[in-house]
Amino acid sequence: MVMQFMSDNAAAVHPAVWRAMMAADAADAPYDNDALSRELDAAFSALLGRECAALWVATGTAANCLALASMAQPHGGVVCHREAHIEMDEAGAPGFYLHGAKLLLADGASAKVTPESVAAVIDPIRDDVHQVQPHALSITQASEYGCVYRPREVAELAALARERGLGFHMDGARFANAVAFLDCAPGEACAGVDALSFGFVKNGGLGAEAIVFFDPDAAHMIRYRRKRAGHLQSKGRFLAAQILAMLEDDIWLSNARAANAAAAEIARGAGDRLLHPVEANEVFLSCTIAERDVLRAQGFGFYDWGVDAARLVTSWDAQDEHVSALARAIAGL
Amino acid sequence: MVMQFMSDNAAAVHPAVWRAMMAADAADAPYDNDALSRELDAAFSALLGRECAALWVATGTAANCLALASMAQPHGGVVCHREAHIEMDEAGAPGFYLHGAKLLLADGASAKVTPESVAAVIDPIRDDVHQVQPHALSITQASEYGCVYRPREVAELAALARERGLGFHMDGARFANAVAFLDCAPGEACAGVDALSFGFVKNGGLGAEAIVFFDPDAAHMIRYRRKRAGHLQSKGRFLAAQILAMLEDDIWLSNARAANAAAAEIARGAGDRLLHPVEANEVFLSCTIAERDVLRAQGFGFYDWGVDAARLVTSWDAQDEHVSALARAIAGL
Amino acid sequence: MVMQFMSDNAAAVHPAVWRAMMAADAADAPYDNDALSRELDAAFSALLGRECAALWVATGTAANCLALASMAQPHGGVVCHREAHIEMDEAGAPGFYLHGAKLLLADGASAKVTPESVAAVIDPIRDDVHQVQPHALSITQASEYGCVYRPREVAELAALARERGLGFHMDGARFANAVAFLDCAPGEACAGVDALSFGFVKNGGLGAEAIVFFDPDAAHMIRYRRKRAGHLQSKGRFLAAQILAMLEDDIWLSNARAANAAAAEIARGAGDRLLHPVEANEVFLSCTIAERDVLRAQGFGFYDWGVDAARLVTSWDAQDEHVSALARAIAGL
Amino acid sequence: MVMQFMSDNAAAVHPAVWRAMMAADAADAPYDNDALSRELDAAFSALLGRECAALWVATGTAANCLALASMAQPHGGVVCHREAHIEMDEAGAPGFYLHGAKLLLADGASAKVTPESVAAVIDPIRDDVHQVQPHALSITQASEYGCVYRPREVAELAALARERGLGFHMDGARFANAVAFLDCAPGEACAGVDALSFGFVKNGGLGAEAIVFFDPDAAHMIRYRRKRAGHLQSKGRFLAAQILAMLEDDIWLSNARAANAAAAEIARGAGDRLLHPVEANEVFLSCTIAERDVLRAQGFGFYDWGVDAARLVTSWDAQDEHVSALARAIAGL
Repeated sequence: MVMQFMSDNAAAVHPAVWRAMMAADAADAPYDNDALSRELDAAFSALLGRECAALWVATGTAANCLALASMAQPHGGVVCHREAHIEMDEAGAPGFYLHGAKLLLADGASAKVTPESVAAVIDPIRDDVHQVQPHALSITQASEYGCVYRPREVAELAALARERGLGFHMDGARFANAVAFLDCAPGEACAGVDALSFGFVKNGGLGAEAIVFFDPDAAHMIRYRRKRAGHLQSKGRFLAAQILAMLEDDIWLSNARAANAAAAEIARGAGDRLLHPVEANEVFLSCTIAERDVLRAQGFGFYDWGVDAARLVTSWDAQDEHVSALARAIAGL
Repeated sequence: MVMQFMSDNAAAVHPAVWRAMMAADAADAPYDNDALSRELDAAFSALLGRECAALWVATGTAANCLALASMAQPHGGVVCHREAHIEMDEAGAPGFYLHGAKLLLADGASAKVTPESVAAVIDPIRDDVHQVQPHALSITQASEYGCVYRPREVAELAALARERGLGFHMDGARFANAVAFLDCAPGEACAGVDALSFGFVKNGGLGAEAIVFFDPDAAHMIRYRRKRAGHLQSKGRFLAAQILAMLEDDIWLSNARAANAAAAEIARGAGDRLLHPVEANEVFLSCTIAERDVLRAQGFGFYDWGVDAARLVTSWDAQDEHVSALARAIAGL
Repeated sequence: MVMQFMSDNAAAVHPAVWRAMMAADAADAPYDNDALSRELDAAFSALLGRECAALWVATGTAANCLALASMAQPHGGVVCHREAHIEMDEAGAPGFYLHGAKLLLADGASAKVTPESVAAVIDPIRDDVHQVQPHALSITQASEYGCVYRPREVAELAALARERGLGFHMDGARFANAVAFLDCAPGEACAGVDALSFGFVKNGGLGAEAIVFFDPDAAHMIRYRRKRAGHLQSKGRFLAAQILAMLEDDIWLSNARAANAAAAEIARGAGDRLLHPVEANEVFLSCTIAERDVLRAQGFGFYDWGVDAARLVTSWDAQDEHVSALARAIAGL
Repeated sequence: MVMQFMSDNAAAVHPAVWRAMMAADAADAPYDNDALSRELDAAFSALLGRECAALWVATGTAANCLALASMAQPHGGVVCHREAHIEMDEAGAPGFYLHGAKLLLADGASAKVTPESVAAVIDPIRDDVHQVQPHALSITQASEYGCVYRPREVAELAALARERGLGFHMDGARFANAVAFLDCAPGEACAGVDALSFGFVKNGGLGAEAIVFFDPDAAHMIRYRRKRAGHLQSKGRFLAAQILAMLEDDIWLSNARAANAAAAEIARGAGDRLLHPVEANEVFLSCTIAERDVLRAQGFGFYDWGVDAARLVTSWDAQDEHVSALARAIAGL
């Protein structure tokens, strides 16, 4: 048997999500005209402490790209980290959804951009028609290396975006893990953003993410774009049900806490093998091919990360004994 | 209480589908690398009697548009009926997925095109660069008015498509209902098509449709396009599970038979109010506003269809007493 | 020798245009930073009696599509006549430039839409996400059948556009011919439009059309889109020179008058063969294949228009004797 | 008076080009059905020693992007140097013409890629649907820093492209300058490429570039795309005339030799200020702000290149005395 630390994408669905989906089975209006879908705006406004509109979609890629489509014109650009998910892992989806708009790549440790690294990208862009002008900024909370923007960092980037006239998007595929780490109000972890991709699938959901718009005009426009992208599911009540179930009793937060705790335990045994601070549910470990063979021989599943590293991801349903075993195995390398 | 005949989209999920989804909950590889997703090609090849590759997506719009993207270049056109779903109800999704390709609209009774009506569209197109050239033909089986192409009709259109160098797509959102009506091998109902959107959501599924490609190169290319469109769900095993559950024991077919039978019963009482032959699970009824008020007062829910008609759709889980009541109510108008 | 009435596109370049181009040969700043390009805004503002910004491009297709790109979102639609040039003859260019937006086709005699025919297209569109919403209205002045919108007609359509929140575009490939016919101030022939494609190529230019924007924000945005479409020529001074030469001494108007007069003379001999009123420089003539053979045998070149008709187009440089000969030939059929 | 070394884009039109354009004024068939346009395929086949089809367009951006559209699918990528014109200066045009395809950026001295730097980009791309797959390779001959790929270098890159299944495009905005430097048969300077953007505007033309396709299917497809992009000028005979005039008597080559010679003379006085080898008609010079002020005070016009450098471009019509004066001025800094 393999003890899986490959991907939180592969984890099980939370029982409360299953129950909510089955409870939604009774026929209701199709698309997003059902009672559950109509609860989302209020649920997220309450959660985030700020008036917003929330749309469900099935995937993070769709959430990110639809959010960005509300901010960047086809002839514009979106500043993001050069290791951002939208740049590296979405098969060019931003180019599709934004009709050819360009990603403008910024640097920064642990896949986090800074006001300086963003400015370094946009400052050299002359305001002339030969160059792609920046229209939006997108950051990932927690980052692709499992690192979390502090509220102050988000605020500084929001201020920069506002000052430069950029829309501000947050890819929150692991927003729950970030909030769990920060131990703050969820609204603080995304203050100043114009649109938030709020992830649930990696955290106990089945196939529903929320796009949260703080600008009602953007939400209105993106309703058309969602349908046009084939993302308006006809039995949308099942997506709304998942999201509402995750929000109820703060399952989203307790699940994230469990995943973070598992990562923290693994990290404790890892010492200076850690390539990035472990703040969410991902551990990036310096280790040789031989060492990875040792771990795999003991039954652990994970991804190689380049030649000399491994990526270990913990899930909300990580089993204690697997986590402890992995921590011991790493310490014993 | 309302007796719903609004939309098969709103119907319940079949219990076997729920069971299969829950059985798929154990962690497996993400995206479509799981064991269930890998069964699809073989399952559809067996069902349709022809080697094919099958990809899941969440919606019919995505299925149709990805299928068409394998056939039509951005500078080309897709011939379809002027009342086709892709023309009327998909919010311009073909324009998005095909990067601006154009729908070329053909006529035909009951939303079915004929070789003559297709030729009438493409014959006047000169082979010059000023005009959009036809690249594909798309038909809906069963049609938007619930009418079914006979195998001979499909064969004639396939021959025309081949002769004119057009890709041939079948929107099978209600393919099951068509096969149930034809009472033929499923492969006969789509013989000669290059890609088939095989619908399950309207027929007892939750959120999974199959795109069936008879050309492996097309399937390969569309795997990239599916991801790029944000339609590669990370827990794809739950989509594969739905589809496999529907195929097992021919639930797809028995569900469609049930829905068709309900429509047939309603039709029997409708006499010359019927605007189209009732061959699948849709009944289009000539009736005045006053008559519709009468039906609604008796508890029946349905859509107006323009000024003088109503659309009644039956589902796999239609209750006999509701159906009988509706048939009687219509007869009594 | 053939006496050509095929296309005003094929006519010669006016001597004043040649002179202006050669005078512009001295090196100047590239793109549209040269002195001539910078004169355009003022020249068109003076001509049309309304503050505007004018951009040159090489073709009418680029002019139309860039103008429309300032009005219609990718998920929207543009209402136009079903025989409009953008629908029939631009190879799907609107789908390219508007990123998949859809043309919504209206009826009307002589390729002119009316408030009623436009309303007939947009009124049935429900405000729901399944349907492409109208974002803009585009009319052709003079129409594809050489018929001219009267100022009152333009005003009514402008009012409708404003009321429905549509952008209003005028394809003025033959705007000069329309103004010559109306014998009004040019600003009256396009009052209320948001963007005008002002054609010169068919009227004595070489390769320069103007897009005139009455909204400065639209002009600003389209400067980026023009470059992105590869239409910002590096020696743009030669395009500006053509346009300014045509405006100087009202050459644009006298050329159009000459072409219109030639068409009128041909029309006079045509009697009830005329399929449309001859108001600009196009004559559509009912005539059999045999009759067309007769005309061609006498040395006249023109296009067939379907089976039973011919299209004859006159140019600014039409020779009197050819025109008279043609008029006599038609009368003699 | 300013002695201009800003841009070869701003230079005058060669007298032979003017003569040829005026000679083409007699009416001929519109678009590219005229006699001159029909000569292009043969002219380029003879020049390049290889069967090809040649299409005119007005700009290098259109030439590059249409060429690339024949090679890269919307979901693919194009490898180019990170300082390539298509990446830096075309306002995102590749994203527009390729419907969202991505540029994949390679390194290399003097804006020239190498087989190694290209492999460094494409080797890490896993063959999975999450990553943009490379479809084409584009190089610039001469490069953006005026450096020339030797035939052996082109051959190696062609071999790599073939081996990896990539289309191979050459941006030859300054192809003439490269051939003049190499002093080889023109076909040797582009051996193995699938499409060549052959520039004329910077070298004495007015507004015409050629896209040369060595694959007839690609040329056929791009004819539709050219029209769809609004680049099929109706008086195309004037573009063909320019190109044929430049080819006749090898004006394209003698013009390029003159421009190269001027750059070489400037370079001779520049010593170790040169940032790149001067092989074509561009000189990149290390010089301080104060030194640039000195040059400008003496009447020389040029662009700053970042903080510590200047870009000087020579044209086919550079005046000897200006060139000598500049060389002396630089030597005297």
